[in-house]
Amino acid sequence: MKVGIIGLGLIGGSMAIDLKRRGFADTILGVESDPLHAAAAEKIGLADEVVGFDECVEQSDIVVLAVPADAAVAMLGKVLDRFEAMGARDRIVIDTCSIKAALAVAVKYHPMRRCYVATHPMAGTEYSGPWAAMPGLFDGRACIIADAEESSEKAVRTVEKLYNTLNMRLIRMNSDSHDVHTAYVSHISHVSSFALALTVLDKERDEKHIFDLASGGFSSTVRLAKSNPDMWVPILTRNSDNVLRVIDTYIEKMQEFRDAIAACDSDKIRSLIDEANRIKKIIR
Amino acid sequence: MKVGIIGLGLIGGSMAIDLKRRGFADTILGVESDPLHAAAAEKIGLADEVVGFDECVEQSDIVVLAVPADAAVAMLGKVLDRFEAMGARDRIVIDTCSIKAALAVAVKYHPMRRCYVATHPMAGTEYSGPWAAMPGLFDGRACIIADAEESSEKAVRTVEKLYNTLNMRLIRMNSDSHDVHTAYVSHISHVSSFALALTVLDKERDEKHIFDLASGGFSSTVRLAKSNPDMWVPILTRNSDNVLRVIDTYIEKMQEFRDAIAACDSDKIRSLIDEANRIKKIIR
Repeated sequence: MKVGIIGLGLIGGSMAIDLKRRGFADTILGVESDPLHAAAAEKIGLADEVVGFDECVEQSDIVVLAVPADAAVAMLGKVLDRFEAMGARDRIVIDTCSIKAALAVAVKYHPMRRCYVATHPMAGTEYSGPWAAMPGLFDGRACIIADAEESSEKAVRTVEKLYNTLNMRLIRMNSDSHDVHTAYVSHISHVSSFALALTVLDKERDEKHIFDLASGGFSSTVRLAKSNPDMWVPILTRNSDNVLRVIDTYIEKMQEFRDAIAACDSDKIRSLIDEANRIKKIIR
Repeated sequence: MKVGIIGLGLIGGSMAIDLKRRGFADTILGVESDPLHAAAAEKIGLADEVVGFDECVEQSDIVVLAVPADAAVAMLGKVLDRFEAMGARDRIVIDTCSIKAALAVAVKYHPMRRCYVATHPMAGTEYSGPWAAMPGLFDGRACIIADAEESSEKAVRTVEKLYNTLNMRLIRMNSDSHDVHTAYVSHISHVSSFALALTVLDKERDEKHIFDLASGGFSSTVRLAKSNPDMWVPILTRNSDNVLRVIDTYIEKMQEFRDAIAACDSDKIRSLIDEANRIKKIIR
Protein backbone atom coordinates (compact mmCIF):
# COMPACT_ATOMS: atom_id res chain seq x y z
CA MET A 1 0.00 0.00 0.00
CA LYS A 2 1.14 3.54 -0.78
CA VAL A 3 0.73 5.87 2.23
CA GLY A 4 0.99 9.63 1.75
CA ILE A 5 1.85 11.56 4.91
CA ILE A 6 1.30 15.29 4.90
CA GLY A 7 3.40 16.79 7.68
CA LEU A 8 6.56 14.87 8.61
CA GLY A 9 6.77 16.03 12.22
CA LEU A 10 6.51 14.08 15.46
CA ILE A 11 3.22 12.36 14.56
CA GLY A 12 3.59 12.00 10.79
CA GLY A 13 7.26 11.04 11.01
CA SER A 14 6.67 8.44 13.75
CA MET A 15 3.82 6.94 11.71
CA ALA A 16 6.04 6.82 8.65
CA ILE A 17 8.72 4.88 10.52
CA ASP A 18 6.45 2.16 11.94
CA LEU A 19 4.07 1.81 8.96
CA LYS A 20 7.07 1.12 6.73
CA ARG A 21 9.04 -1.07 9.15
CA ARG A 22 6.02 -3.14 10.07
CA GLY A 23 5.04 -3.71 6.44
CA PHE A 24 1.74 -1.84 6.28
CA ALA A 25 3.18 0.60 3.74
CA ASP A 26 5.24 -0.46 0.72
CA THR A 27 5.96 3.18 -0.02
CA ILE A 28 5.75 6.34 2.06
CA LEU A 29 5.25 9.59 0.16
CA GLY A 30 5.88 12.62 2.35
CA VAL A 31 4.80 16.25 2.06
CA GLU A 32 6.47 18.92 4.15
CA SER A 33 5.96 22.65 3.60
CA ASP A 34 8.79 23.81 5.87
CA PRO A 35 12.01 23.57 3.80
CA LEU A 36 14.21 22.82 6.83
CA HIS A 37 11.85 20.11 8.06
CA ALA A 38 11.65 18.68 4.52
CA ALA A 39 15.45 18.50 4.24
CA ALA A 40 15.72 16.91 7.72
CA ALA A 41 12.96 14.38 6.93
CA GLU A 42 14.80 13.35 3.74
CA LYS A 43 18.11 13.14 5.54
CA ILE A 44 16.60 11.02 8.35
CA GLY A 45 14.84 8.93 5.72
CA LEU A 46 11.30 9.27 7.07
CA ALA A 47 9.74 9.04 3.60
CA ASP A 48 10.73 7.18 0.47
CA GLU A 49 10.12 10.39 -1.43
CA VAL A 50 9.23 13.95 -0.44
CA VAL A 51 6.73 15.24 -3.01
CA GLY A 52 4.23 18.05 -3.54
CA PHE A 53 0.72 18.07 -2.06
CA ASP A 54 -1.08 17.29 -5.34
CA GLU A 55 1.24 14.47 -6.29
CA CYS A 56 0.89 12.94 -2.84
CA VAL A 57 -2.91 13.06 -2.93
CA GLU A 58 -3.07 11.65 -6.44
CA GLN A 59 -0.71 8.76 -5.86
CA SER A 60 -1.48 7.57 -2.31
CA ASP A 61 -3.99 4.89 -1.31
CA ILE A 62 -4.29 6.58 2.07
CA VAL A 63 -3.52 10.22 2.79
CA VAL A 64 -2.65 11.07 6.41
CA LEU A 65 -3.04 14.71 7.47
CA ALA A 66 -0.50 15.06 10.30
CA VAL A 67 -0.54 18.86 10.50
CA PRO A 68 -1.88 21.39 13.04
CA ALA A 69 -5.67 21.59 13.29
CA ASP A 70 -6.09 24.81 11.28
CA ALA A 71 -4.07 23.44 8.38
CA ALA A 72 -5.93 20.12 8.59
CA VAL A 73 -9.33 21.85 8.32
CA ALA A 74 -8.11 23.73 5.22
CA MET A 75 -6.48 20.68 3.60
CA LEU A 76 -9.21 18.12 4.24
CA GLY A 77 -11.65 19.78 1.83
CA LYS A 78 -8.93 20.06 -0.81
CA VAL A 79 -8.06 16.38 -0.55
CA LEU A 80 -11.71 15.39 -0.88
CA ASP A 81 -12.11 17.79 -3.86
CA ARG A 82 -9.16 16.09 -5.51
CA PHE A 83 -10.64 12.62 -4.86
CA GLU A 84 -13.86 13.86 -6.45
CA ALA A 85 -12.08 15.23 -9.51
CA MET A 86 -10.30 11.88 -9.86
CA GLY A 87 -13.56 9.97 -9.34
CA ALA A 88 -11.64 7.99 -6.71
CA ARG A 89 -14.24 6.76 -4.20
CA ASP A 90 -11.91 4.05 -2.90
CA ARG A 91 -9.27 6.49 -1.69
CA ILE A 92 -8.97 7.29 2.01
CA VAL A 93 -7.94 10.38 3.95
CA ILE A 94 -7.48 10.52 7.71
CA ASP A 95 -6.45 13.27 10.10
CA THR A 96 -4.65 12.96 13.44
CA CYS A 97 -5.90 16.10 15.21
CA SER A 98 -6.72 16.57 18.86
CA ILE A 99 -10.03 18.21 17.88
CA LYS A 100 -12.70 16.51 15.85
CA ALA A 101 -15.90 18.59 15.66
CA ALA A 102 -14.41 21.43 13.55
CA LEU A 103 -13.26 18.90 10.94
CA ALA A 104 -16.57 17.07 10.99
CA VAL A 105 -18.48 20.28 10.38
CA ALA A 106 -16.10 21.40 7.63
CA VAL A 107 -16.80 18.39 5.37
CA LYS A 108 -20.24 17.30 6.60
CA TYR A 109 -21.87 17.81 3.19
CA HIS A 110 -18.91 17.02 0.98
CA PRO A 111 -19.92 14.45 -1.65
CA MET A 112 -16.76 12.47 -0.84
CA ARG A 113 -17.30 12.58 2.97
CA ARG A 114 -17.26 8.77 3.20
CA CYS A 115 -13.62 8.71 2.05
CA TYR A 116 -12.67 10.54 5.25
CA VAL A 117 -12.05 8.70 8.52
CA ALA A 118 -11.64 11.01 11.52
CA THR A 119 -8.97 9.72 13.91
CA HIS A 120 -6.99 10.90 16.91
CA PRO A 121 -4.01 8.77 17.86
CA MET A 122 -3.44 9.90 21.46
CA ALA A 123 0.32 9.77 21.64
CA GLY A 124 3.05 12.34 21.56
CA THR A 125 5.80 14.06 23.46
CA GLU A 126 6.43 17.71 24.17
CA TYR A 127 8.85 17.82 21.23
CA SER A 128 8.04 18.45 17.57
CA GLY A 129 9.55 18.32 14.11
CA PRO A 130 11.00 15.41 12.08
CA TRP A 131 13.86 15.02 14.60
CA ALA A 132 11.27 14.21 17.29
CA ALA A 133 9.87 11.27 15.30
CA MET A 134 10.54 7.87 16.86
CA PRO A 135 9.61 4.21 16.42
CA GLY A 136 7.08 2.80 18.87
CA LEU A 137 5.49 6.17 19.72
CA PHE A 138 1.95 4.80 19.37
CA ASP A 139 2.39 1.35 20.92
CA GLY A 140 -0.26 0.63 23.54
CA ARG A 141 -1.83 4.11 23.42
CA ALA A 142 -5.48 4.91 22.71
CA CYS A 143 -6.70 5.98 19.28
CA ILE A 144 -10.14 7.50 18.78
CA ILE A 145 -12.09 6.84 15.61
CA ALA A 146 -14.77 9.52 15.48
CA ASP A 147 -18.14 9.37 13.70
CA ALA A 148 -17.21 6.05 12.07
CA GLU A 149 -20.75 5.73 10.66
CA GLU A 150 -20.09 8.74 8.43
CA SER A 151 -17.23 6.92 6.69
CA SER A 152 -17.37 3.99 4.29
CA GLU A 153 -17.09 0.67 6.10
CA LYS A 154 -14.24 -0.42 3.88
CA ALA A 155 -12.30 2.76 4.63
CA VAL A 156 -12.81 2.27 8.38
CA ARG A 157 -11.59 -1.33 8.15
CA THR A 158 -8.41 -0.25 6.36
CA VAL A 159 -7.78 2.54 8.88
CA GLU A 160 -8.31 0.09 11.74
CA LYS A 161 -5.69 -2.13 10.14
CA LEU A 162 -3.33 0.86 9.95
CA TYR A 163 -3.75 1.63 13.67
CA ASN A 164 -3.55 -2.05 14.61
CA THR A 165 -0.16 -2.04 12.90
CA LEU A 166 0.79 0.79 15.26
CA ASN A 167 -0.46 -1.34 18.21
CA MET A 168 -3.05 1.22 19.25
CA ARG A 169 -6.17 0.55 21.32
CA LEU A 170 -9.12 1.64 19.15
CA ILE A 171 -12.06 3.46 20.74
CA ARG A 172 -15.11 4.72 18.84
CA MET A 173 -16.84 7.93 19.81
CA ASN A 174 -18.66 10.79 18.15
CA SER A 175 -16.70 13.96 17.48
CA ASP A 176 -18.55 16.10 20.03
CA SER A 177 -17.87 13.63 22.85
CA HIS A 178 -14.28 13.41 21.71
CA ASP A 179 -13.82 17.15 22.05
CA VAL A 180 -15.34 17.22 25.54
CA HIS A 181 -13.19 14.35 26.79
CA THR A 182 -9.93 15.64 25.30
CA ALA A 183 -10.59 19.05 26.85
CA TYR A 184 -10.53 17.25 30.22
CA VAL A 185 -7.79 14.69 29.81
CA SER A 186 -5.45 16.55 27.49
CA HIS A 187 -6.14 20.21 26.71
CA ILE A 188 -6.45 21.40 30.34
CA SER A 189 -3.19 19.61 31.23
CA HIS A 190 -1.43 21.74 28.65
CA VAL A 191 -3.06 25.00 29.75
CA SER A 192 -2.26 24.30 33.43
CA SER A 193 1.33 23.51 32.50
CA PHE A 194 1.67 26.71 30.44
CA ALA A 195 0.23 28.70 33.38
CA LEU A 196 2.68 27.04 35.77
CA ALA A 197 5.66 27.91 33.57
CA LEU A 198 4.45 31.51 33.24
CA THR A 199 3.98 31.79 37.03
CA VAL A 200 7.46 30.54 37.82
CA LEU A 201 9.17 32.49 35.01
CA ASP A 202 7.34 35.63 36.11
CA LYS A 203 8.56 35.47 39.68
CA GLU A 204 11.86 33.66 39.51
CA ARG A 205 13.79 36.25 37.51
CA ASP A 206 16.94 34.43 38.43
CA GLU A 207 16.75 31.43 36.13
CA LYS A 208 19.63 29.74 37.90
CA HIS A 209 17.43 29.36 40.97
CA ILE A 210 14.77 27.54 38.97
CA PHE A 211 17.38 25.28 37.46
CA ASP A 212 19.07 24.58 40.80
CA LEU A 213 15.91 23.97 42.75
CA ALA A 214 13.57 22.41 40.22
CA SER A 215 12.51 19.12 41.71
CA GLY A 216 11.42 16.12 39.74
CA GLY A 217 7.86 17.10 40.63
CA PHE A 218 8.16 20.52 39.03
CA SER A 219 9.84 19.09 35.93
CA SER A 220 7.06 16.60 35.28
CA THR A 221 4.26 19.09 35.95
CA VAL A 222 5.80 21.74 33.70
CA ARG A 223 6.91 19.35 30.94
CA LEU A 224 3.97 20.10 28.64
CA ALA A 225 4.79 23.83 28.75
CA LYS A 226 7.47 23.04 26.18
CA SER A 227 4.74 22.19 23.65
CA ASN A 228 4.63 23.87 20.26
CA PRO A 229 2.29 26.88 19.76
CA ASP A 230 1.75 25.93 16.08
CA MET A 231 -0.07 22.85 17.32
CA TRP A 232 -1.73 24.30 20.42
CA VAL A 233 -3.12 27.67 19.29
CA PRO A 234 -5.57 26.06 16.82
CA ILE A 235 -6.59 23.36 19.32
CA LEU A 236 -7.43 25.90 22.02
CA THR A 237 -9.33 28.20 19.66
CA ARG A 238 -11.18 25.45 17.78
CA ASN A 239 -12.22 23.67 20.99
CA SER A 240 -12.76 26.87 22.93
CA ASP A 241 -16.26 26.14 24.29
CA ASN A 242 -15.16 22.94 25.98
CA VAL A 243 -11.77 24.27 27.03
CA LEU A 244 -13.31 27.38 28.64
CA ARG A 245 -15.73 25.25 30.65
CA VAL A 246 -12.87 23.11 31.92
CA ILE A 247 -10.70 26.14 32.74
CA ASP A 248 -13.60 27.57 34.76
CA THR A 249 -13.92 24.38 36.78
CA TYR A 250 -10.16 24.30 37.22
CA ILE A 251 -10.05 27.88 38.53
CA GLU A 252 -12.89 27.04 40.94
CA LYS A 253 -10.92 24.09 42.32
CA MET A 254 -7.79 26.20 42.64
CA GLN A 255 -9.86 28.87 44.41
CA GLU A 256 -11.17 26.21 46.85
CA PHE A 257 -7.57 25.36 47.70
CA ARG A 258 -6.75 29.05 48.03
CA ASP A 259 -9.64 29.66 50.41
CA ALA A 260 -8.83 26.62 52.53
CA ILE A 261 -5.15 27.62 52.79
CA ALA A 262 -6.03 31.25 53.56
CA ALA A 263 -8.32 30.03 56.34
CA CYS A 264 -5.64 27.59 57.57
CA ASP A 265 -8.41 25.00 57.38
CA SER A 266 -6.36 21.81 57.57
CA ASP A 267 -9.44 19.56 57.49
CA LYS A 268 -10.66 21.13 54.26
CA ILE A 269 -7.21 20.95 52.62
CA ARG A 270 -6.97 17.30 53.68
CA SER A 271 -10.36 16.47 52.20
CA LEU A 272 -9.42 18.15 48.90
CA ILE A 273 -6.16 16.18 48.73
CA ASP A 274 -7.92 12.94 49.72
CA GLU A 275 -10.37 13.51 46.88
CA ALA A 276 -7.56 14.31 44.41
CA ASN A 277 -5.75 11.14 45.53
CA ARG A 278 -8.59 9.12 43.93
CA ILE A 279 -6.71 9.63 40.65
CA LYS A 280 -4.28 6.97 41.97
CA LYS A 281 -6.83 4.27 41.31
CA ILE A 282 -7.27 5.38 37.72
CA ILE A 283 -3.80 6.38 36.53
CA ARG A 284 -1.21 3.76 37.35
CA MET B 1 28.74 6.76 63.22
CA LYS B 2 25.32 5.96 64.69
CA VAL B 3 22.49 7.61 62.75
CA GLY B 4 19.01 7.79 64.23
CA ILE B 5 16.23 8.23 61.72
CA ILE B 6 12.83 9.28 62.98
CA GLY B 7 10.25 8.39 60.36
CA LEU B 8 11.11 5.42 58.12
CA GLY B 9 9.09 6.50 55.10
CA LEU B 10 10.18 7.44 51.59
CA ILE B 11 12.77 10.02 52.73
CA GLY B 12 13.96 8.47 55.99
CA GLY B 13 13.97 4.95 54.58
CA SER B 14 15.89 5.95 51.44
CA MET B 15 18.46 7.79 53.56
CA ALA B 16 18.82 4.75 55.79
CA ILE B 17 19.55 2.51 52.80
CA ASP B 18 22.29 4.67 51.26
CA LEU B 19 23.90 5.94 54.49
CA LYS B 20 24.40 2.35 55.57
CA ARG B 21 25.42 0.90 52.18
CA ARG B 22 27.84 3.71 51.48
CA GLY B 23 29.50 3.44 54.87
CA PHE B 24 28.52 6.78 56.43
CA ALA B 25 26.53 5.01 59.15
CA ASP B 26 27.79 1.98 61.08
CA THR B 27 24.40 1.61 62.68
CA ILE B 28 20.96 2.92 61.78
CA LEU B 29 18.46 3.27 64.62
CA GLY B 30 14.93 3.81 63.36
CA VAL B 31 11.84 5.27 65.00
CA GLU B 32 8.42 4.72 63.46
CA SER B 33 5.17 5.58 65.22
CA ASP B 34 2.87 3.78 62.77
CA PRO B 35 2.89 0.09 63.79
CA LEU B 36 2.34 -1.18 60.23
CA HIS B 37 5.14 1.02 58.89
CA ALA B 38 7.39 -0.08 61.75
CA ALA B 39 6.77 -3.75 60.98
CA ALA B 40 7.35 -3.17 57.26
CA ALA B 41 10.55 -1.21 57.90
CA GLU B 42 11.88 -4.06 60.07
CA LYS B 43 10.88 -6.65 57.49
CA ILE B 44 12.52 -4.67 54.66
CA GLY B 45 15.55 -4.13 56.90
CA LEU B 46 15.71 -0.34 56.65
CA ALA B 47 17.11 0.04 60.17
CA ASP B 48 19.42 -2.14 62.24
CA GLU B 49 17.00 -1.69 65.10
CA VAL B 50 13.61 -0.02 65.49
CA VAL B 51 13.60 1.73 68.89
CA GLY B 52 11.64 4.34 70.85
CA PHE B 53 12.04 8.09 70.38
CA ASP B 54 14.02 8.67 73.60
CA GLU B 55 16.38 5.78 73.04
CA CYS B 56 17.05 6.93 69.49
CA VAL B 57 17.82 10.51 70.57
CA GLU B 58 20.05 9.37 73.43
CA GLN B 59 22.10 6.90 71.41
CA SER B 60 22.54 8.55 68.00
CA ASP B 61 25.37 10.84 66.90
CA ILE B 62 23.01 12.40 64.37
CA VAL B 63 19.22 12.43 64.61
CA VAL B 64 17.34 12.84 61.32
CA LEU B 65 13.74 14.08 61.53
CA ALA B 66 12.12 12.61 58.42
CA VAL B 67 8.52 13.26 59.38
CA PRO B 68 5.80 15.67 58.14
CA ALA B 69 6.42 19.34 58.94
CA ASP B 70 3.97 19.58 61.86
CA ALA B 71 5.53 16.61 63.61
CA ALA B 72 9.03 17.93 62.88
CA VAL B 73 8.22 21.29 64.52
CA ALA B 74 6.95 19.48 67.60
CA MET B 75 9.84 17.00 67.78
CA LEU B 76 12.72 19.38 67.11
CA GLY B 77 12.32 21.19 70.44
CA LYS B 78 12.06 17.86 72.25
CA VAL B 79 15.27 16.57 70.70
CA LEU B 80 17.12 19.76 71.64
CA ASP B 81 15.68 19.58 75.19
CA ARG B 82 17.02 16.05 75.46
CA PHE B 83 20.47 17.13 74.18
CA GLU B 84 20.42 19.86 76.83
CA ALA B 85 19.48 17.43 79.61
CA MET B 86 22.33 15.17 78.47
CA GLY B 87 24.74 18.11 78.25
CA ALA B 88 25.52 16.82 74.75
CA ARG B 89 26.65 19.85 72.73
CA ASP B 90 28.34 17.65 70.11
CA ARG B 91 25.15 15.90 69.07
CA ILE B 92 23.41 16.88 65.83
CA VAL B 93 19.79 16.97 64.71
CA ILE B 94 18.64 17.70 61.17
CA ASP B 95 15.23 17.88 59.56
CA THR B 96 14.27 17.16 55.94
CA CYS B 97 11.16 19.34 55.58
CA SER B 98 9.98 21.29 52.55
CA ILE B 99 9.45 24.34 54.79
CA LYS B 100 12.17 25.96 56.83
CA ALA B 101 10.99 29.23 58.43
CA ALA B 102 8.49 27.62 60.84
CA LEU B 103 11.24 25.36 62.20
CA ALA B 104 13.73 28.22 62.43
CA VAL B 105 11.28 30.30 64.45
CA ALA B 106 10.36 27.38 66.73
CA VAL B 107 13.90 26.90 68.06
CA LYS B 108 15.43 30.35 67.47
CA TYR B 109 16.15 30.94 71.18
CA HIS B 110 16.75 27.34 72.24
CA PRO B 111 20.06 27.12 74.12
CA MET B 112 21.02 24.10 71.98
CA ARG B 113 20.09 25.79 68.65
CA ARG B 114 23.61 25.26 67.29
CA CYS B 115 23.14 21.48 67.38
CA TYR B 116 20.39 21.82 64.76
CA VAL B 117 21.18 21.98 61.03
CA ALA B 118 18.17 22.85 58.85
CA THR B 119 18.19 20.90 55.59
CA HIS B 120 15.89 20.12 52.71
CA PRO B 121 16.98 17.30 50.44
CA MET B 122 14.90 18.03 47.33
CA ALA B 123 14.11 14.55 46.17
CA GLY B 124 11.09 12.34 46.34
CA THR B 125 8.39 10.58 44.42
CA GLU B 126 4.62 10.72 44.71
CA TYR B 127 4.70 7.57 46.84
CA SER B 128 5.19 7.29 50.59
CA GLY B 129 5.83 4.78 53.36
CA PRO B 130 8.74 2.39 53.97
CA TRP B 131 7.85 0.41 50.81
CA ALA B 132 8.53 3.55 48.76
CA ALA B 133 12.12 3.82 50.04
CA MET B 134 14.78 3.17 47.42
CA PRO B 135 18.53 3.37 46.96
CA GLY B 136 19.83 6.29 44.91
CA LEU B 137 16.82 8.55 45.55
CA PHE B 138 18.99 11.57 46.35
CA ASP B 139 21.78 11.12 43.78
CA GLY B 140 22.41 14.30 41.82
CA ARG B 141 19.53 16.27 43.35
CA ALA B 142 19.77 19.61 45.18
CA CYS B 143 19.88 19.86 48.97
CA ILE B 144 19.36 23.17 50.76
CA ILE B 145 21.20 23.92 53.98
CA ALA B 146 19.32 26.81 55.58
CA ASP B 147 20.67 29.40 58.01
CA ALA B 148 23.99 27.54 58.29
CA GLU B 149 25.44 30.39 60.38
CA GLU B 150 22.99 29.51 63.18
CA SER B 151 24.50 26.03 63.51
CA SER B 152 27.88 24.99 64.85
CA GLU B 153 30.51 24.78 62.12
CA LYS B 154 31.44 21.27 63.11
CA ALA B 155 27.81 20.15 62.90
CA VAL B 156 27.48 21.72 59.43
CA ARG B 157 30.64 19.95 58.23
CA THR B 158 29.33 16.57 59.41
CA VAL B 159 25.94 17.18 57.78
CA GLU B 160 27.67 18.18 54.53
CA LYS B 161 29.55 14.89 54.66
CA LEU B 162 26.24 13.07 55.15
CA TYR B 163 24.70 14.72 52.06
CA ASN B 164 27.89 14.27 50.04
CA THR B 165 27.52 10.56 50.77
CA LEU B 166 24.05 10.82 49.23
CA ASN B 167 25.61 12.57 46.17
CA MET B 168 23.53 15.71 46.64
CA ARG B 169 24.37 19.20 45.31
CA LEU B 170 24.54 21.46 48.37
CA ILE B 171 23.09 24.98 48.21
CA ARG B 172 23.08 27.44 51.12
CA MET B 173 20.20 29.83 51.63
CA ASN B 174 18.34 31.47 54.48
CA SER B 175 15.08 29.89 55.55
CA ASP B 176 12.83 32.71 54.31
CA SER B 177 14.31 32.57 50.79
CA HIS B 178 13.99 28.81 50.87
CA ASP B 179 10.27 29.04 51.59
CA VAL B 180 9.69 31.55 48.77
CA HIS B 181 11.60 29.47 46.20
CA THR B 182 10.01 26.16 47.15
CA ALA B 183 6.57 27.76 46.93
CA TYR B 184 7.40 28.46 43.26
CA VAL B 185 9.28 25.37 42.19
CA SER B 186 7.57 22.75 44.30
CA HIS B 187 4.48 23.69 46.30
CA ILE B 188 2.52 25.26 43.41
CA SER B 189 3.23 22.21 41.23
CA HIS B 190 1.47 20.09 43.81
CA VAL B 191 -1.50 22.42 44.18
CA SER B 192 -1.94 22.69 40.40
CA SER B 193 -1.78 18.93 40.12
CA PHE B 194 -4.36 18.45 42.89
CA ALA B 195 -6.63 20.99 41.16
CA LEU B 196 -6.22 19.17 37.84
CA ALA B 197 -7.17 15.83 39.39
CA LEU B 198 -10.21 17.39 41.09
CA THR B 199 -11.30 19.02 37.81
CA VAL B 200 -11.12 15.81 35.85
CA LEU B 201 -12.63 13.64 38.59
CA ASP B 202 -15.47 16.14 38.99
CA LYS B 203 -16.49 16.06 35.34
CA GLU B 204 -15.47 12.64 34.14
CA ARG B 205 -17.88 10.63 36.26
CA ASP B 206 -17.09 7.63 34.09
CA GLU B 207 -13.65 6.66 35.37
CA LYS B 208 -13.17 4.24 32.50
CA HIS B 209 -13.07 7.19 30.11
CA ILE B 210 -10.27 8.84 32.08
CA PHE B 211 -8.34 5.60 32.10
CA ASP B 212 -8.90 4.94 28.40
CA LEU B 213 -8.11 8.42 27.22
CA ALA B 214 -5.46 9.62 29.65
CA SER B 215 -2.53 10.59 27.51
CA GLY B 216 1.07 10.57 28.70
CA GLY B 217 0.73 14.33 29.05
CA PHE B 218 -2.17 14.06 31.49
CA SER B 219 -0.43 11.33 33.48
CA SER B 220 2.72 13.38 34.02
CA THR B 221 0.84 16.57 34.86
CA VAL B 222 -1.44 14.81 37.34
CA ARG B 223 1.25 12.59 38.88
CA LEU B 224 1.79 14.75 41.96
CA ALA B 225 -1.93 14.58 42.78
CA LYS B 226 -1.16 11.15 44.22
CA SER B 227 0.89 12.81 46.98
CA ASN B 228 0.19 12.12 50.64
CA PRO B 229 -1.99 14.61 52.58
CA ASP B 230 -0.05 13.86 55.82
CA MET B 231 2.95 15.50 54.21
CA TRP B 232 1.19 18.23 52.21
CA VAL B 233 -1.38 19.68 54.62
CA PRO B 234 1.32 20.99 57.02
CA ILE B 235 3.47 22.32 54.15
CA LEU B 236 0.59 24.30 52.65
CA THR B 237 -0.56 25.71 56.00
CA ARG B 238 2.92 26.46 57.35
CA ASN B 239 4.04 28.16 54.13
CA SER B 240 0.66 29.73 53.46
CA ASP B 241 1.81 33.32 52.86
CA ASN B 242 4.15 32.33 50.05
CA VAL B 243 1.85 29.68 48.64
CA LEU B 244 -1.12 32.08 48.51
CA ARG B 245 0.94 34.65 46.62
CA VAL B 246 1.98 32.03 44.08
CA ILE B 247 -1.57 30.71 43.71
CA ASP B 248 -2.77 34.25 43.01
CA THR B 249 -0.19 34.71 40.26
CA TYR B 250 -1.09 31.30 38.90
CA ILE B 251 -4.81 32.11 38.77
CA GLU B 252 -3.98 35.42 37.00
CA LYS B 253 -1.99 33.54 34.34
CA MET B 254 -4.78 31.01 33.91
CA GLN B 255 -7.27 33.87 33.61
CA GLU B 256 -5.10 35.48 30.88
CA PHE B 257 -5.32 32.22 28.95
CA ARG B 258 -9.06 32.09 29.55
CA ASP B 259 -9.58 35.62 28.28
CA ALA B 260 -7.43 35.06 25.19
CA ILE B 261 -9.27 31.82 24.35
CA ALA B 262 -12.68 33.42 24.97
CA ALA B 263 -11.73 36.26 22.60
CA CYS B 264 -10.34 33.73 20.07
CA ASP B 265 -7.23 35.92 20.14
CA SER B 266 -4.73 33.58 18.48
CA ASP B 267 -1.89 36.12 18.64
CA LYS B 268 -2.27 36.51 22.39
CA ILE B 269 -2.49 32.74 22.97
CA ARG B 270 0.61 32.28 20.82
CA SER B 271 2.55 34.91 22.77
CA LEU B 272 1.59 33.26 26.09
CA ILE B 273 2.74 29.86 24.84
CA ASP B 274 5.95 31.34 23.38
CA GLU B 275 6.68 32.87 26.77
CA ALA B 276 5.90 29.59 28.59
CA ASN B 277 8.20 27.76 26.13
CA ARG B 278 11.15 29.64 27.69
CA ILE B 279 11.06 26.95 30.40
CA LYS B 280 12.69 24.68 27.76
CA LYS B 281 15.98 26.47 28.21
CA ILE B 282 15.92 25.94 31.96
CA ILE B 283 14.47 22.46 32.46
CA ARG B 284 16.12 19.90 30.25
